[in-house]
Amino acid sequence: MPSRQNAGANLSGNSQPGNVSKILADFVVGSRWEDVPTAVRHEAKRSLLNFFGTALGGCRDEAIKIAGTVLSEFSGSHQATIIGRPERTDMLNAAFLNAASSNVFDFDDTHVSTIMHPTAPVAPVLLALAERRRMSGTELLLAFVLGVEVECRIGKSISPDHYNRGWHITATCGVFGATAAAGKQLGLDEQQIVHAFGSASAQASGLVETLGSMAKSVGVGNASRAGLLSALLAERGFTGPDRPFDGQRGFTTVASSNPDLSRITSGLGQDWELLENACKPYPSGVVLFPVIDGCLALRDKHSLPNDQIHEIRVAGNPLLKQRADRPSPKTGREAQVSAQHSAAVALLFGAAGIAEFANAMVNNPKVSELRQRVFVVEDPGISVDAAAISVRMRDGNEFRMKIEHARGSLQHQMTDAEIEQKFHALVAHGCPGCDSSELLRAVWAIDQIDDVGEIMKLARPK
Amino acid sequence: MPSRQNAGANLSGNSQPGNVSKILADFVVGSRWEDVPTAVRHEAKRSLLNFFGTALGGCRDEAIKIAGTVLSEFSGSHQATIIGRPERTDMLNAAFLNAASSNVFDFDDTHVSTIMHPTAPVAPVLLALAERRRMSGTELLLAFVLGVEVECRIGKSISPDHYNRGWHITATCGVFGATAAAGKQLGLDEQQIVHAFGSASAQASGLVETLGSMAKSVGVGNASRAGLLSALLAERGFTGPDRPFDGQRGFTTVASSNPDLSRITSGLGQDWELLENACKPYPSGVVLFPVIDGCLALRDKHSLPNDQIHEIRVAGNPLLKQRADRPSPKTGREAQVSAQHSAAVALLFGAAGIAEFANAMVNNPKVSELRQRVFVVEDPGISVDAAAISVRMRDGNEFRMKIEHARGSLQHQMTDAEIEQKFHALVAHGCPGCDSSELLRAVWAIDQIDDVGEIMKLARPK
Repeated sequence: MPSRQNAGANLSGNSQPGNVSKILADFVVGSRWEDVPTAVRHEAKRSLLNFFGTALGGCRDEAIKIAGTVLSEFSGSHQATIIGRPERTDMLNAAFLNAASSNVFDFDDTHVSTIMHPTAPVAPVLLALAERRRMSGTELLLAFVLGVEVECRIGKSISPDHYNRGWHITATCGVFGATAAAGKQLGLDEQQIVHAFGSASAQASGLVETLGSMAKSVGVGNASRAGLLSALLAERGFTGPDRPFDGQRGFTTVASSNPDLSRITSGLGQDWELLENACKPYPSGVVLFPVIDGCLALRDKHSLPNDQIHEIRVAGNPLLKQRADRPSPKTGREAQVSAQHSAAVALLFGAAGIAEFANAMVNNPKVSELRQRVFVVEDPGISVDAAAISVRMRDGNEFRMKIEHARGSLQHQMTDAEIEQKFHALVAHGCPGCDSSELLRAVWAIDQIDDVGEIMKLARPK
Repeated sequence: MPSRQNAGANLSGNSQPGNVSKILADFVVGSRWEDVPTAVRHEAKRSLLNFFGTALGGCRDEAIKIAGTVLSEFSGSHQATIIGRPERTDMLNAAFLNAASSNVFDFDDTHVSTIMHPTAPVAPVLLALAERRRMSGTELLLAFVLGVEVECRIGKSISPDHYNRGWHITATCGVFGATAAAGKQLGLDEQQIVHAFGSASAQASGLVETLGSMAKSVGVGNASRAGLLSALLAERGFTGPDRPFDGQRGFTTVASSNPDLSRITSGLGQDWELLENACKPYPSGVVLFPVIDGCLALRDKHSLPNDQIHEIRVAGNPLLKQRADRPSPKTGREAQVSAQHSAAVALLFGAAGIAEFANAMVNNPKVSELRQRVFVVEDPGISVDAAAISVRMRDGNEFRMKIEHARGSLQHQMTDAEIEQKFHALVAHGCPGCDSSELLRAVWAIDQIDDVGEIMKLARPK
């Protein structure tokens, strides 16, 4: 993880980076499309395609439906698209709902060193703004890249302590990404962006305790809404503190024990956080990816009739047992963090998508029966993105599979084609009436589009 | 301070109070108007009158104007009054703006043991709901009392560590008071209120770093808005974690180092937090109240022509020097925490209200000249709500005044008449067109009103 490179240079060292609030604001104002390397540009498109997929897949989840209904009473205009829905709403509510629906399955992208989902809070504010005022595709991509850069760097400066304490980093730091992106789009100057960061700092929230319940979506939705609001306030002259991040009681100080501000500034404008971003191949906890990979590979390679399976042993890093040793999940959300469930569905169906982690699948008799024969084994010698699976059959035969780097790790990124496949599957699940092919083509060609607000028309059911 | 009584019974002791999230929800659901003692009922009315005063006084502040303009684009309906303004907005935006304007001068009430401003987040959600669905005055008062009870008890469980870390407790804990009050009004059951607390926990935010800038108002406004939203979501079945306050990574654990949950439950339903609530006589830091009292008393008693004053010595608790030794404030907000400015205006004008802490007054030559002759002296033997003032004249005469308990302390609460006087002065400052007498009469008689939404008509300019 590149972030480790800076771990030595913390506040007690010699490399205090100066006023990081201003440095970040200058970076946002000064960066141009020409400054963004090709690889980063492409990664931005992949993240956006993945975003549209997870938002379309999640837009009919119960949490999103309830939030949409409640907020509709307070929707000020029909200026912005709710992804996957025929109705429209105002920009702030659209940002809230689209961020929440893209993250509701935890199937969106993951910034590896912070485990933040970086796209969810940032993309919705830009897409909403693009429907209000003309914006080109490259303008959107640039603001998106900068937003991700800001939130991930803030997140790195307070990781891992911040998340370990119980803060849901996607929400708490995402709000700054949303602010930066909106600020760039609105053409704010440095001082205005610092002020906007201040208003964002007074709205940074989200608790790990809420994961597994609908309340998680409030934190993530708010991060996007609050970022947009903060930028709109600053545009009109609303002030904030001079050093919202690194003041005496600024965000990084309050939100962690030992912030390392050099991780905000080191390599800024040269090393890009989007290159540390990975799309998730399965809607499950990251620690389960190598388990699912291994089981899918075993099923591909051998005929393994499930009634002949005696026992499945899943050996992995101790984190696997700690986080995911759950033989009897009760809900789909719990199944998403169950090694037993993940192995069982992969071996039974050769798939581990949204359908395999739905509530209905949890009570499928075949699945619950096979789950009981899955055992998690700790092996400190195995890294987090690796696993060793062995399946013993009733006849004594044993089949083994070792995964060194799971799909969805930085070493084994999903291919563009795999992201497309995931996208189509999610659209089919959550928004069957949408023309996913046309939207897919538009996202890959987004840097050619003059009026990117048009793209949102493709994200609604016909 | 009554809260001290429980200080010994913390988590490491024998008195773990059980599931405090559920205990608080049960308390909110089960409490009836008959359970609220007369003294608490009266304190609730005083707090509401003080709230209307500070909201009307603050409603034309620049921060409120900008926020109102920005949010008007996203206002879904005209269901709720913006206090002191002719235009109306939706409930969520009204809660935001009215909470923000009541707190913008830091002139609202103070819960002594937490230094929280308890009314700002709670009252606006009830007043907004009252305009949407019929609510009696006693229903409003009951929900208000319960909301204050919840937020102050949560605040006590994490004080003083929480504020010391840099969290603006009015916002971070206020959201739970707003949630409880709205939940009571909406008739939520225990489980729904626990779920609503969960959504609130994912929105709890606000930084001390933002004090002195407009961004403070975003935190306070959001606390009210987010509490109302959380209750509305729960009403429709939106879920949260089972133990939002005391789960493994629940709010109290994440937000402080050593929460004392017994302070949430001890005496619940018997000891009422509103009785620890004090209205502020001056729009300045609390530590300055005895200084102002002393200077006003000296001016009343003696003729002290300012050009004859040689030196003013203000002796107080070390906290006074630490927080308020500012001989040359640059803005009204800074003057609010300047001992020199406070003493100077009190001696010069015999007043220390909104006008005396306005930006214009900071540059008044007489004031800035007299400030230079004020010196702050530390005396650890003097308590925080006391001060000793001595004024030495050019002719060698010296006048002294000792204040034992400042006005606005629990030992020397403002009288009802003084709160009325403050209310009228604030209305004259911020909303000259409002009929403050009629509103004042309605608040004192609020428990006789069947449709309390009507009261909001009196809080708008004619």
